[in-house]
Amino acid sequence: MAHASGINYSFGLWTVGWNAQDQFGSASRPHLDPARAVRKLAELGAWGFTFHDDDVVPFGSDDATRDRLLGEVKTAAEESGMTIEMVTTNLFGHPVFKDGGFTSNDRSVRRFALRKVLRNIDLTAELGAKTFVMWGGREGSEYDGAKDLHAALERYREGIDLVAGYIKEKGYDMRIALEPKPNEPRGDIFLPTIGHALGFIAQLEHGDIVGLNPETGHEQMAGLNYTHGLAQALWSDKLFHIDLNGQRSIKFDQDLVFGHGDLLSAFFTVDLVENGFPGSPDAPRYTGPRHFDYKPSRTEVEAGVWDSASANMEMYEMLAKKSAAYRADPEVQEAFTTAGIFELATPTLNPGETVDELLADRSAFEDFDPEAAAERDFGFVRLNQLALRHLIG
Amino acid sequence: MAHASGINYSFGLWTVGWNAQDQFGSASRPHLDPARAVRKLAELGAWGFTFHDDDVVPFGSDDATRDRLLGEVKTAAEESGMTIEMVTTNLFGHPVFKDGGFTSNDRSVRRFALRKVLRNIDLTAELGAKTFVMWGGREGSEYDGAKDLHAALERYREGIDLVAGYIKEKGYDMRIALEPKPNEPRGDIFLPTIGHALGFIAQLEHGDIVGLNPETGHEQMAGLNYTHGLAQALWSDKLFHIDLNGQRSIKFDQDLVFGHGDLLSAFFTVDLVENGFPGSPDAPRYTGPRHFDYKPSRTEVEAGVWDSASANMEMYEMLAKKSAAYRADPEVQEAFTTAGIFELATPTLNPGETVDELLADRSAFEDFDPEAAAERDFGFVRLNQLALRHLIG
Amino acid sequence: MAHASGINYSFGLWTVGWNAQDQFGSASRPHLDPARAVRKLAELGAWGFTFHDDDVVPFGSDDATRDRLLGEVKTAAEESGMTIEMVTTNLFGHPVFKDGGFTSNDRSVRRFALRKVLRNIDLTAELGAKTFVMWGGREGSEYDGAKDLHAALERYREGIDLVAGYIKEKGYDMRIALEPKPNEPRGDIFLPTIGHALGFIAQLEHGDIVGLNPETGHEQMAGLNYTHGLAQALWSDKLFHIDLNGQRSIKFDQDLVFGHGDLLSAFFTVDLVENGFPGSPDAPRYTGPRHFDYKPSRTEVEAGVWDSASANMEMYEMLAKKSAAYRADPEVQEAFTTAGIFELATPTLNPGETVDELLADRSAFEDFDPEAAAERDFGFVRLNQLALRHLIG
Amino acid sequence: MAHASGINYSFGLWTVGWNAQDQFGSASRPHLDPARAVRKLAELGAWGFTFHDDDVVPFGSDDATRDRLLGEVKTAAEESGMTIEMVTTNLFGHPVFKDGGFTSNDRSVRRFALRKVLRNIDLTAELGAKTFVMWGGREGSEYDGAKDLHAALERYREGIDLVAGYIKEKGYDMRIALEPKPNEPRGDIFLPTIGHALGFIAQLEHGDIVGLNPETGHEQMAGLNYTHGLAQALWSDKLFHIDLNGQRSIKFDQDLVFGHGDLLSAFFTVDLVENGFPGSPDAPRYTGPRHFDYKPSRTEVEAGVWDSASANMEMYEMLAKKSAAYRADPEVQEAFTTAGIFELATPTLNPGETVDELLADRSAFEDFDPEAAAERDFGFVRLNQLALRHLIG
Repeated sequence: MAHASGINYSFGLWTVGWNAQDQFGSASRPHLDPARAVRKLAELGAWGFTFHDDDVVPFGSDDATRDRLLGEVKTAAEESGMTIEMVTTNLFGHPVFKDGGFTSNDRSVRRFALRKVLRNIDLTAELGAKTFVMWGGREGSEYDGAKDLHAALERYREGIDLVAGYIKEKGYDMRIALEPKPNEPRGDIFLPTIGHALGFIAQLEHGDIVGLNPETGHEQMAGLNYTHGLAQALWSDKLFHIDLNGQRSIKFDQDLVFGHGDLLSAFFTVDLVENGFPGSPDAPRYTGPRHFDYKPSRTEVEAGVWDSASANMEMYEMLAKKSAAYRADPEVQEAFTTAGIFELATPTLNPGETVDELLADRSAFEDFDPEAAAERDFGFVRLNQLALRHLIG
Repeated sequence: MAHASGINYSFGLWTVGWNAQDQFGSASRPHLDPARAVRKLAELGAWGFTFHDDDVVPFGSDDATRDRLLGEVKTAAEESGMTIEMVTTNLFGHPVFKDGGFTSNDRSVRRFALRKVLRNIDLTAELGAKTFVMWGGREGSEYDGAKDLHAALERYREGIDLVAGYIKEKGYDMRIALEPKPNEPRGDIFLPTIGHALGFIAQLEHGDIVGLNPETGHEQMAGLNYTHGLAQALWSDKLFHIDLNGQRSIKFDQDLVFGHGDLLSAFFTVDLVENGFPGSPDAPRYTGPRHFDYKPSRTEVEAGVWDSASANMEMYEMLAKKSAAYRADPEVQEAFTTAGIFELATPTLNPGETVDELLADRSAFEDFDPEAAAERDFGFVRLNQLALRHLIG
Repeated sequence: MAHASGINYSFGLWTVGWNAQDQFGSASRPHLDPARAVRKLAELGAWGFTFHDDDVVPFGSDDATRDRLLGEVKTAAEESGMTIEMVTTNLFGHPVFKDGGFTSNDRSVRRFALRKVLRNIDLTAELGAKTFVMWGGREGSEYDGAKDLHAALERYREGIDLVAGYIKEKGYDMRIALEPKPNEPRGDIFLPTIGHALGFIAQLEHGDIVGLNPETGHEQMAGLNYTHGLAQALWSDKLFHIDLNGQRSIKFDQDLVFGHGDLLSAFFTVDLVENGFPGSPDAPRYTGPRHFDYKPSRTEVEAGVWDSASANMEMYEMLAKKSAAYRADPEVQEAFTTAGIFELATPTLNPGETVDELLADRSAFEDFDPEAAAERDFGFVRLNQLALRHLIG
Repeated sequence: MAHASGINYSFGLWTVGWNAQDQFGSASRPHLDPARAVRKLAELGAWGFTFHDDDVVPFGSDDATRDRLLGEVKTAAEESGMTIEMVTTNLFGHPVFKDGGFTSNDRSVRRFALRKVLRNIDLTAELGAKTFVMWGGREGSEYDGAKDLHAALERYREGIDLVAGYIKEKGYDMRIALEPKPNEPRGDIFLPTIGHALGFIAQLEHGDIVGLNPETGHEQMAGLNYTHGLAQALWSDKLFHIDLNGQRSIKFDQDLVFGHGDLLSAFFTVDLVENGFPGSPDAPRYTGPRHFDYKPSRTEVEAGVWDSASANMEMYEMLAKKSAAYRADPEVQEAFTTAGIFELATPTLNPGETVDELLADRSAFEDFDPEAAAERDFGFVRLNQLALRHLIG
């Protein structure tokens, strides 16, 4: 089922399922049965869900337990009409992964990690999910001397290419989405931002089925603009999935409700996802689910868990409506023109123009008056104020 | 001439030449004649220098002035035995570039910027410099609505490919090095980190001659690990040039002397540049000059300018010696082994092993004991302490 | 004149008057005549204005020039009905202050700085302004060894106490408001946050007339919560003035329009300033002007300057209305109760309860059930979502 | 026993005792018996230790268990000659404190928290420790609307004054040291920095026995200069205790080994603690233990735990020696003079000079030549380079 608005929302089971144990304190909420979470999310209007293997099947469970627990979740999904749209593997919780999975200095751990992932790939295919996310939260270091950084990237490549090759070999209809994060729990994590992951994918043998799952807060933990990052991922045709949440400035990973962090940034994120680039109608668009990866605050008990789950969807709905009105407003369109938004979509060279022709164009340089051109008022502040009027007016 | 140590140091003329005017105050030092700077840097032990067009020739100068001023710098270079190793173009100082050069919303500005760069490419070739750096400091925005972000990346690609194509067409022995920066002077700058630039280059037509010029402080302004970034650039065979300096945490761009920022990070940067990856002898190495892009503090007058220039080289020399001893220390080598540094260089798969063979290897999963493996002591803290003993012991 | 809403808005003349020269580029706008700025701000709905001595009278002007320029501004103020509500002294622009004013290592500079400030105190009194702001932007260091930090604080105290003593001696109806900032232009600035300034004031002889002028972006540059900071200043009865603007995360000082940075934070700032603490009706309130200290973006020319000035007031007006409705909403009041907002205003001890009585109260400890108490759902996420519904709904 | 160097080092039992469970993963080390930790730290050269009540006695233990467990630790202390120098209370681990202890919106929790602390005060007195630290890690909020901020500060004051009053009433020879932290685990923590705590203490009734316990990483998480913060605490006569550790830039709380974070900053911290202010021999000095509050990395097992504990002391020892040599170096002393370090200790006014006399001194203003004064070269970069030569030369 989809939300009444027609937008497909999904949640990680680890979000509502978080028992609120954190670095400085013990759990404030009891274990939440995954099947119950699925049904409840469906009631609230979600269309789908996602999970780590260990969210449903505790690490080290035997096969019978695994089958039973997965069966319960599948049944819940079927009965509630929920789509399992993505699956991911936990390579960070158990201490065997304390130095990482694919890039652990311990080769036996790397082999174990590959096997844990491959097993999950089969499960993902069986469940019909099309996206397999990989967040390498423990791939990294605290100390620059603790890694041969070239070898680490080689092993990361080896691992991802092996998994991607396996997907192809099996003929699975599935793509891998890497999730960058700059730090926490490691001091520095490999592939710290959208950009580093894009650069990494470019070096893969099977990079064609490897893309990104960028998370709002992870980019903002590096002080980066999430919407800019999504745009570069789209431009590279690599925005396979998204993790929406909230973060307030550069600090520990907060995983707040979407829109409860940098609100103005969230508005422009939704504007991009829902409405595309204003002057580039043929540019790639994001077509996957609107997936939330957040944590209900530790101060909340079960009512607060569901309130916060709903708040994510409500925030997105409100922002989607606001951004639609923003784009439709003739004054905004006029301000776009004044600001040169559409002008930027025009190539800098004339159609067919060669570099020699550019060099011969005196109007571009010899006769160009930079002082006069510098006086252009782009009206960016006014345009931003128009957005704010739509957002809160 | 090279430094007595044999290491090739170079400086931007805008470094010692900065008149110390900043965002909140006027100049504290008089204009420094570029030719004088060249000679003085040579005396201090530098091997080469670099400059922006506008560092030597004020924006808007006529051709005769341009020829005269460039001639003075060339003469100084020849007479002092200094190498002009890199040239770059100022697309950020004049207000015509207030919304950027290659990605300005104003198309006439984009054409002017291309022409300014092409003119400088010819100059670079004429001067024999092999690297052309492009820092797009004004390519970006303060407001997410102020740009069609897809169009911006398209225009950036168009511009860089045009310049790279021109270099090839002319047969110049020259490569382009992009310099990432997350923000300042724009609120968000396009290609904010090493990673984003690597991802961008992967989309270029002429990406083979486009690489990176990463700056210490720029990565650290996003809280990222500079040495990790250099490693990914090397792994991608894209580390064409480096800008060394110092930064203290996430704040405005400080441009301190190299090593006067995060000292431990500087040690590992030098360790990587001078000694390569510890377990990957065949990995790419950085072979370009050790280039400093710093600013003598505004509190200093001319003596302080030269003291600070020397301090960069002295810091690098000290760190190079320390890191050589660190690598040569048998205890460090033993700690590398304990930590699994060399083990990481061993592929995770056996030679020729297929995924099916991995899946059939029960020792990798079914018979693997994660609890036992989790008890491995990597000794990372001890290894780091060994590094510190070498650094300050 | 006041704004139609009855709220008193004021602007620094250096805001709209900024010529947009920044660290990396030259001016993009011509000098703006201060008297013209006063009249134009009045037209836009401002009630008052503020200035640094050097904003109106260039550093080093002779007395005749000074009298003439100040006269023009006074005339403009009178004719336009604008209030000069605060005056401040520029101790950061001229290179004589490159190591600070009151804490420069150079004693002659310190004496000059004191004289520059004292002269301005007389002017402030003459103009009838009640607040004298001191932002010590150059009081600080880049290098920890560059200062005797105890001596620096002693000199800072000596300077502020001398000025405050002079105000008292002269019988001026005026208070000093210190403006904290963590860094930029210095690597580290003394009195980096609201807290450090409060701690400093507690050590003054004349601290009774010394309080704070906290700036939104300055606190946010340290990742701190501006509204929390205002609350502690109010609680200490030291919120003498405010500087409202916008900042996006931890980076260089952006000085965006108020509300164009962290919007949700701006909502709660206005909520506090306009509506006070929800459960503490007798707590101190801020009664000064709503003063904006922002910079029109460098991409704008004159139209954008005035658009951005208006945007500050429009943002504040919108947020004031939203926050009034938020407070008046019965559902919000109910959520306040659920969350314990009002309960926090009840002292923890019973009226007249002694510590011995508390120790004897078995219900507080021996018979207290922490497990049961831990199950309370504070409903904080729901309350925040109610705020967001009011803000953007 | 003291360290061979004569410096008194102490450790929190929660440091070496951390089982390495973090936000994203389960424990990688078994429970460490506190008595064993005491003996082992003594062997390594520590002089003392500290603990939270819950470090030794699990939350909710009955009195007999409490007596037995505390007895074991006391015995270990006596037998190994270790001093219990500080005790603190855990008001953050159990979910009953999920909204704080002294400032929880739930009054019954506040009363329970007071009782838990008072009980611990008696224990502290009984054990002879002179310092009682209070880190209010859960005092704060994620959402600005979730607190009446005035009431929160009132309750915080009520609580601290009650505890301080109790100490006085009982005649205990003990002082309270508040430990600031900007965030984590709460989104924003009250008393986020050294400054805020100093400002808070100034409002207390019993502030004379309340001071600070600043932690290196906590200040650096706000981008603040730790040594500057220590200096202001000393200047205010409030540096009662210190928590030394390491942090790399603005991110989650890393709790690295001291000196494994910002090394140059650590050098100047030790320089201040060991050698005092260079030009202010009569200024307050820190006389308490050198206390480490760090976490052995999760990648380490027991060997790594003890290696890391030793590394803290070894780092401090090395830095102490380096800083002593730095201060003794005649070239450094000369550079201090050139830089005006000693000049800053001279009051700005002449002995007995009045403000009228300053106003009458034409040499201070009318005849002062700011252009000439601006040309002073402070030699700060050279001085910093001298420090670096001592640090790593």
